[in-house]
Amino acid sequence: MRIGIDAMGGDFAPEVAVMGIIQASKEIPAGATIVAYGDATIIELILQRENCNSSNIEIIDAPEVIGMNDHPAKAFQIKQNSSITVGFKHLHGGKIDAFASAGSTGAMMVGAMYTIKSIQGIIRPCITGPVPKLSGGKMTTLLDVGLNSDCKPDVLYQYGTLGNLFAKYYYEIENPKVCLLNIGSEEEKGNLLTRAAHELMKDSFDYKFCGNIESNELYSDKVDVIVCDGFTGNIVLKQVESLYNVAQELNVSNPFFEHFNYENHGGTPVLGVNAPVIIGHGASNAKAIKNMILQTHKVIVSDLTEKIKQAFQ
Amino acid sequence: MRIGIDAMGGDFAPEVAVMGIIQASKEIPAGATIVAYGDATIIELILQRENCNSSNIEIIDAPEVIGMNDHPAKAFQIKQNSSITVGFKHLHGGKIDAFASAGSTGAMMVGAMYTIKSIQGIIRPCITGPVPKLSGGKMTTLLDVGLNSDCKPDVLYQYGTLGNLFAKYYYEIENPKVCLLNIGSEEEKGNLLTRAAHELMKDSFDYKFCGNIESNELYSDKVDVIVCDGFTGNIVLKQVESLYNVAQELNVSNPFFEHFNYENHGGTPVLGVNAPVIIGHGASNAKAIKNMILQTHKVIVSDLTEKIKQAFQ
Repeated sequence: MRIGIDAMGGDFAPEVAVMGIIQASKEIPAGATIVAYGDATIIELILQRENCNSSNIEIIDAPEVIGMNDHPAKAFQIKQNSSITVGFKHLHGGKIDAFASAGSTGAMMVGAMYTIKSIQGIIRPCITGPVPKLSGGKMTTLLDVGLNSDCKPDVLYQYGTLGNLFAKYYYEIENPKVCLLNIGSEEEKGNLLTRAAHELMKDSFDYKFCGNIESNELYSDKVDVIVCDGFTGNIVLKQVESLYNVAQELNVSNPFFEHFNYENHGGTPVLGVNAPVIIGHGASNAKAIKNMILQTHKVIVSDLTEKIKQAFQ
Repeated sequence: MRIGIDAMGGDFAPEVAVMGIIQASKEIPAGATIVAYGDATIIELILQRENCNSSNIEIIDAPEVIGMNDHPAKAFQIKQNSSITVGFKHLHGGKIDAFASAGSTGAMMVGAMYTIKSIQGIIRPCITGPVPKLSGGKMTTLLDVGLNSDCKPDVLYQYGTLGNLFAKYYYEIENPKVCLLNIGSEEEKGNLLTRAAHELMKDSFDYKFCGNIESNELYSDKVDVIVCDGFTGNIVLKQVESLYNVAQELNVSNPFFEHFNYENHGGTPVLGVNAPVIIGHGASNAKAIKNMILQTHKVIVSDLTEKIKQAFQ
């Protein structure tokens, strides 16, 4: 297994990205190689400085960087030696099994759509966010959390399918409870979008639809997959994640709040594309990068991409 | 000053509503009379049982109840002796200065639109939710939190004006910072609605527009008024309020979490109608009813309705 990782991606790369790679190389199961894309000279310097000679790290020289202010599509085309462009070429060519980056989300999506492309039948790929359960049960999956701000009802229906497969194969939840995020529990509640989506979802035979869920029940056992448009999901997820900082600022401690620390999750896989692609936080520190790499390993092992392809055949 | 209150409104009325009225009668400033609409026999029985002979409580017999399952518009018309119908007739006729209820929100809105009506120039009245600041500063106002699930950009622009006036006269914030809730700080971020609303708001001379705010900064000092559509606002507010229960369930205590307990706020005024109307939580207990009455007093004193009328002349 070969896990591609962008060593130039994220606000504090390459330093922090390489430190994360070193940490991951010590924890990742045997048989997996971490393939780092970036400026080989700098990466090697950091590895030497840290006395790291892990045999499971491989370096591919791709010194150009697509910055946060670059136009994603243009930069992806022009910067042929950028870590993201080379990474996607290798992913498309089968030289790696997955590609992960904490760099420009826009460039990552352009890369995915230009090279490996959407799985046939998928209207819109999406990204997910993890929401903990107060009971301590397996994580709930929120989707979309930001790729598609304006969605049609059939897209929400499909998010149900994607979230169901993610919960099933990534979190190993046997028969996930899929709910629609809404502003009332009754069927007729909501805005134009959720009312129309509810109509489609209630007859679903692709997943177990359990009706509407309100945002005061995010952490409940009633739900394993929460479906919404990318605008709403992004707002809900950032509000969820902010709880970690709120707890810190108030000096309030409880293990539950640790779940809200994105460092512990790493990144989010893009659901609905033809190979595993993982996008991390721009502000990722070494721990977040390490966890993104371990998460990428888990996504590959779960065979999620194949399961999605089968479901949409 | 005469404050109308629905004694039949809320899941635990009239018992809990009357208990709240009794508590409020002891705390409300001199010169104010609480006018209770409901079944006079039952209200008097509870007052006697509680040995309450407050001279500042007046009872208007209106024994019918508009239930949560009634069709709001039909029930408001047919149940001419319901507490809500009689209350709005009196508000319209000037017999009371405000009307508050924890009963059917639908019937309250029908009552407001049929009797006192929207202020001229207001496209859509709306309701607000309070969001605390981590610094302990004055409350931030979130609007709309549920009246209008699908909004046009000009409606969001107007929410800015309404929220600005509310923050100014109710919370006494001198020059409120008005922000648009969005999924990025940059101008071009967002969905179709927020991008168009941003275009309108950035040129506002009705209020001090301070750009986009993300949901991980809800509790910050950067903002006093947060504008969004009613679907998003309802989801954000319920997520905010759920923190109180999360803290209780985790056995985590901090004064900050008390802000999230709706009992301490009471209800929400409907902004943009021709007289003060306050809507409370259906699940209100006596403390929440008491605070709703005190809040109604404060809304009257702030002269908010008049300030809104002047702004839209």
